[in-house]
Amino acid sequence: MTTPLAARIAREYGTPVAVIDMDKVERNIARVQKACDAVGVANRPHIKTHKSPMLAKMQIAAGAKGITCQKLGEAEVMAEAGIDNILISYNLIGEEKMARLGALQTKAHMTVAADNPVVVSSLKQAAAASGRPLSVVVECDTGRKRAGVETPTEAIALARQIAGSEGLVFAGFMLYPTETGWAEAQKFHDEALAGVRAHGLDATMVSTGGSPNLKNLGKLQGATEHRPGTYIYNDRMQVAAGVATWDDCALNIYSTVVSRAGADRGILDAGSKTLTSDTGGLDGHGLILEHPEARIAKFAEEHGFLDLARSNTRPAVGDVVRIVPNHVCVVVNMMDEVVMVRGDEILGTLKVEARGKLR
Amino acid sequence: MTTPLAARIAREYGTPVAVIDMDKVERNIARVQKACDAVGVANRPHIKTHKSPMLAKMQIAAGAKGITCQKLGEAEVMAEAGIDNILISYNLIGEEKMARLGALQTKAHMTVAADNPVVVSSLKQAAAASGRPLSVVVECDTGRKRAGVETPTEAIALARQIAGSEGLVFAGFMLYPTETGWAEAQKFHDEALAGVRAHGLDATMVSTGGSPNLKNLGKLQGATEHRPGTYIYNDRMQVAAGVATWDDCALNIYSTVVSRAGADRGILDAGSKTLTSDTGGLDGHGLILEHPEARIAKFAEEHGFLDLARSNTRPAVGDVVRIVPNHVCVVVNMMDEVVMVRGDEILGTLKVEARGKLR
Repeated sequence: MTTPLAARIAREYGTPVAVIDMDKVERNIARVQKACDAVGVANRPHIKTHKSPMLAKMQIAAGAKGITCQKLGEAEVMAEAGIDNILISYNLIGEEKMARLGALQTKAHMTVAADNPVVVSSLKQAAAASGRPLSVVVECDTGRKRAGVETPTEAIALARQIAGSEGLVFAGFMLYPTETGWAEAQKFHDEALAGVRAHGLDATMVSTGGSPNLKNLGKLQGATEHRPGTYIYNDRMQVAAGVATWDDCALNIYSTVVSRAGADRGILDAGSKTLTSDTGGLDGHGLILEHPEARIAKFAEEHGFLDLARSNTRPAVGDVVRIVPNHVCVVVNMMDEVVMVRGDEILGTLKVEARGKLR
Repeated sequence: MTTPLAARIAREYGTPVAVIDMDKVERNIARVQKACDAVGVANRPHIKTHKSPMLAKMQIAAGAKGITCQKLGEAEVMAEAGIDNILISYNLIGEEKMARLGALQTKAHMTVAADNPVVVSSLKQAAAASGRPLSVVVECDTGRKRAGVETPTEAIALARQIAGSEGLVFAGFMLYPTETGWAEAQKFHDEALAGVRAHGLDATMVSTGGSPNLKNLGKLQGATEHRPGTYIYNDRMQVAAGVATWDDCALNIYSTVVSRAGADRGILDAGSKTLTSDTGGLDGHGLILEHPEARIAKFAEEHGFLDLARSNTRPAVGDVVRIVPNHVCVVVNMMDEVVMVRGDEILGTLKVEARGKLR
């Protein structure tokens, strides 16, 4: 079964193709902004999900105070489009990056993260190149064992190093608590804050992150802002995390069934080069709206392996199906453009301008 | 420890970045061409690995008879660059694709694959649009349960449908045997060939595939050509399959260590948006040449989680390391360009022109 819209999309653009419903996008933007407003925490959406200046500007128009980027290349695209308040939530290091960061500082108000002294030393170069002070937040690890200093003591020492570095301004703390780790994050934050205050510093920015953490919004006393990314589109992971419904999933991959060589199986024209091998910790690689009992079992690069053994409905060759991806952020990064619709109306394409900005 | 070349690459281009050694690329091209020549099987390299017309032309100049593409968009880039003999080893279907395939036929000699009657019916539209006959091979499944008819009887019936369709020419069979399934493939091939001959048809093209199958080259009696892809760069999977050495791995990802928040761990600036979550069935996500005992344990989108517990040598923050990816084909697809070197000399960048051609 192919919906009339899917048939038109396939005819006009071909498959596989990402389709976003702007009604849902706008609803998602408004809902999360309202939730932030309700608890008095600023919204600084992470644009790694959509990588589009147009969507970032919609988030800002709805009330976001600025944006978050993970890579310099993303920030360059956003600053070029006129966005002025940008946090790069990442350790930047090295001459090449410092020259670019210095140039960015002349276009936008930049804040960057650091979790070690080598990065802080490097950042001084950027500030020197731009001639403008650079705001730096200390990234704190509160359970993910990713980036971030592991103890308040280290956070305090790094804050002091930042404050003592010419051209750098200590701005505060950046945290990315686990979904169940907010008490731990509070303890870390309180100790670190008391420590920097004891040295005459203060945290004007305390930033938490994650769309799954929208359910924890407001829980950290002292938080000034939150960095949700995925909420603009949502995906299977957000539904699993309890922060979105299927109807909130604004992006679908439209894919054609190209083979049904066995009764219990089929092949989609979307493989790991479209949906990626990122499972997000879930079973299967996406939900097929037309056949929710079908399982996308595995991938070749351009083949999605459909296991239909437990599905009462089975697609025919040529059917176009709609897939909610497991992890939408990595899927959007695979494509140069997405198709925008509003309900059944096709609006045109939107370029994923910061796609592939891996540096 | 950062090699002098890695330091220069990082300074000039930033990290993470893909670097290909042209000496190794040329050696890989020559070695596989020689292996094909030695057993009298034509070489039709799969360009999904490199997605670059320049490299495809090097493969043809070395003796390849044509190329293989997996998507129409890849074939369009290659035909535009003047490559004339192209197999799209994929079931193409639908109006939009048929219009493009018809247009492609006016630029290059095209062969396409089919494993079902719906695809064959669709292909007639392309032939009609171009006014030129279109060569079609029947894709046969011999163990992977991907695309491909499951029995010789179905292969024969599909061959007859193709031969009986206006504008279509039955060209032969396309197989992608598993590494241990060549006896099974031979049996399938022999039965299907005898069947089509009994109906007055013949297979002028019998195409086998896969770089790991280079060790089986020449094993299928009746094969006319082979479609290896990964061999031009090689990767951890090819080394594991026994068809390449570490020294044959021509592409490395150069990545900076950006965090060392714990003694036994670190963070690379290459995550799933650079190296992808495709493990290729291997443990860990790549071999770090400088620290072969370190394990790239998992990814966030822009973070590679380094587990150093079993590594006697440990990188410092700021070190640039070289990574052999597990599956190079999906990694190349993440980036707009790669940097070419020859030994220690930096030659410049090469655009990945067919990157992201998912349709």
